[in-house]
Amino acid sequence: MPSEIRDAMDAIGEQARSAGQVIARTPTGAKNRALEAMARQIEGARDRILEANAADLEAANRTGLSSALLDRLELTPERVGAMAEGLAQIASLPDPVGEISDMSPRPSGITVGKMRVPLGVIGIIYESRPNVTADAAGLCLKSGNAAILRGGSEALHSNGAIGDCLARGLAEAGLPESVIQVLKTTDRSAVSAMLQSPHYLDVIVPRGGRGLIEKVSAESQVPVIRHLDGNCHVFVDDHADVDKAVEIAFNAKCRRYGVCGAMETLLLASSVAAAVLERLLPRYVEAGVELRGCARTREMVPGCTGATESDWETEYLAPVLAVRIVDSLDEAIAHIGRYGSGHTDAIVTNDLSRSQRFIREVDSSSVMVNASTQFADGFEYGLGAEIGISTDRLHVRGPVGLEGLTIQKYIVYGDGTTRP
Amino acid sequence: MPSEIRDAMDAIGEQARSAGQVIARTPTGAKNRALEAMARQIEGARDRILEANAADLEAANRTGLSSALLDRLELTPERVGAMAEGLAQIASLPDPVGEISDMSPRPSGITVGKMRVPLGVIGIIYESRPNVTADAAGLCLKSGNAAILRGGSEALHSNGAIGDCLARGLAEAGLPESVIQVLKTTDRSAVSAMLQSPHYLDVIVPRGGRGLIEKVSAESQVPVIRHLDGNCHVFVDDHADVDKAVEIAFNAKCRRYGVCGAMETLLLASSVAAAVLERLLPRYVEAGVELRGCARTREMVPGCTGATESDWETEYLAPVLAVRIVDSLDEAIAHIGRYGSGHTDAIVTNDLSRSQRFIREVDSSSVMVNASTQFADGFEYGLGAEIGISTDRLHVRGPVGLEGLTIQKYIVYGDGTTRP
Repeated sequence: MPSEIRDAMDAIGEQARSAGQVIARTPTGAKNRALEAMARQIEGARDRILEANAADLEAANRTGLSSALLDRLELTPERVGAMAEGLAQIASLPDPVGEISDMSPRPSGITVGKMRVPLGVIGIIYESRPNVTADAAGLCLKSGNAAILRGGSEALHSNGAIGDCLARGLAEAGLPESVIQVLKTTDRSAVSAMLQSPHYLDVIVPRGGRGLIEKVSAESQVPVIRHLDGNCHVFVDDHADVDKAVEIAFNAKCRRYGVCGAMETLLLASSVAAAVLERLLPRYVEAGVELRGCARTREMVPGCTGATESDWETEYLAPVLAVRIVDSLDEAIAHIGRYGSGHTDAIVTNDLSRSQRFIREVDSSSVMVNASTQFADGFEYGLGAEIGISTDRLHVRGPVGLEGLTIQKYIVYGDGTTRP
Repeated sequence: MPSEIRDAMDAIGEQARSAGQVIARTPTGAKNRALEAMARQIEGARDRILEANAADLEAANRTGLSSALLDRLELTPERVGAMAEGLAQIASLPDPVGEISDMSPRPSGITVGKMRVPLGVIGIIYESRPNVTADAAGLCLKSGNAAILRGGSEALHSNGAIGDCLARGLAEAGLPESVIQVLKTTDRSAVSAMLQSPHYLDVIVPRGGRGLIEKVSAESQVPVIRHLDGNCHVFVDDHADVDKAVEIAFNAKCRRYGVCGAMETLLLASSVAAAVLERLLPRYVEAGVELRGCARTREMVPGCTGATESDWETEYLAPVLAVRIVDSLDEAIAHIGRYGSGHTDAIVTNDLSRSQRFIREVDSSSVMVNASTQFADGFEYGLGAEIGISTDRLHVRGPVGLEGLTIQKYIVYGDGTTRP
């Protein structure tokens, strides 16, 4: 890595560390005033942000970015407004920092409890969508963390313009601008420098496609909160209400195809498969959903393509659905354990003990009973906002909100108490 | 790495994964029966364990292991009994797995909450003390995790004999023996294989000296819960009760020198320094504690050695204490922030608002008011037992008990509920 990049990143890291110490101690009111000022700055700079975005879009068109990526990159006056509104909403959320819990006296005479504190300095590495700049910055600030944000080179101008607004908002509220630092370099070695910097980053949150997340996971010396695939399942149990099963299976696939909580494989108990498919098939056909079935599914669904091993493993994010008929709850749980990605899986059943077994035995970040997997979302869960959905097993699983960006330390009170 | 080691470790990893799925679902009663059976097996095999330990001690004597390490390696009938008792105690602790919390209805009609679940497969890499084999195995089993244990080569026979007891205990309780696998190879590449195996290990807990922990941290592809140095401070504030300050400062240094919660630097507010030192010095002199002071301390303590920069950074684990006189709470907090290791730090004060500032602003895994830093311990905190003390910032800080070996997943209930 070029030494000037290493030096520049070290300077940024040191600034983040010292800003992190300030923001960790900043009272809620002052953090909220900063968030509101950042929102106003974005509102006030709408035209400048759109101009910067137009420059990014022009360059992206020239380099032939795909239309899906162009859509994610594009800002509209509404999207800029939504960014500002998002920051104001974060200001209205309860502040987790400083929350004290579980205080209880011990036989020795000390009283022991926990206090919630920020993680420190958070690195965000993301692609395309410039609104992440404002969202992630707002969540990090409110949870008392400093942040270093590294967006994709395709969004350099947009992110820079948004970053300027955030800095002005911080300054307006009397907080150090280096609480939020948006990198203004497209040099790829800046990412490597972040990944190799456990001395100034406490955690990295990658947001983007599989390639980005795998690169970050493989190379990072800094702990990572990952969001990998959502290969989500709905299992319709023998004891399911067929009406509910049909509604859930349709919603879980068709509400939105491109979200990580979308169902990718439908598992049907053999005793109800025919009844469910009879009602569900016409709706899938109307929506244009292509089915790929196991042998028994194909017997029931004329013309259905055969599912291969890779279908069970695939997160389609598209109007395609793998369907498998199983003979038992055990078989369903085993299928999910083998092929699932530990994101979100649901059972449809009216049987209490089966619902309990499914909840206990399916090892996913969200496990649902009689609800659509598309509910997997921080807003729906009441977190107010989310920085991503963790499919990791340490620190936090599922949607990551403000609390997920904090940790508890122990606090101990005595009265001159010594240990025997 | 030799391919036969890689293959052997992969086989062990696969067995651990499948045993992990079994133990994650095992009810509390069955886990407790296994713990009690393991305890009985250890009691019953006391002589065999002591013979194996004698073989290790003989080999260690031949290779010239230091007397401190020999002491840690040595088992006595009492130490074997304590191991068995430790397992029985873990059986009596509440089981965190399956605990449901925070269930609350959302406007959409779903009810969202959290369920505590095991982490999966835990790797323990440790040195010398064979009792870790039983302690760590018991904590992992009770928290529903499978474990792969890799002790030091100096304790190979002892760990093997203990591991055999654990396996027989598991079998007696009808659980898979591979829930707890004690590696019986001294090949160092087995450790490297563990560090490179995120596919079958969910977390690694290293227990040992700085060298081991730094190697594990630097090389591991698996998330690590680290326990680094305890460079602990006591700050005696202007508003301290001098009696309490003297008792705490003496206990924090002298109760035991070799524990990570021992005070290594004493910070004295200038207004009370003389009064505290007058009472404290004779006691330190009697205990044989050597002081290393700042310039102002040396004016008050005739013949006191001068403290260098490295004294502020050092975890002595010995009857040596660095002493610094400071002019304010700010200066004390800044000193701890700069030189401390984020383990355990205490203030002695009667001033409420200063105690609150210290608690909020000192970023350590345990922050104490008017109590000895030697209280930093899972038993003292009411965790029942601990697998170590985390100085990491993610997942868990401070003493790690059963709860620290688990994580919460989301559970969602609907009634045929779909997302609009």
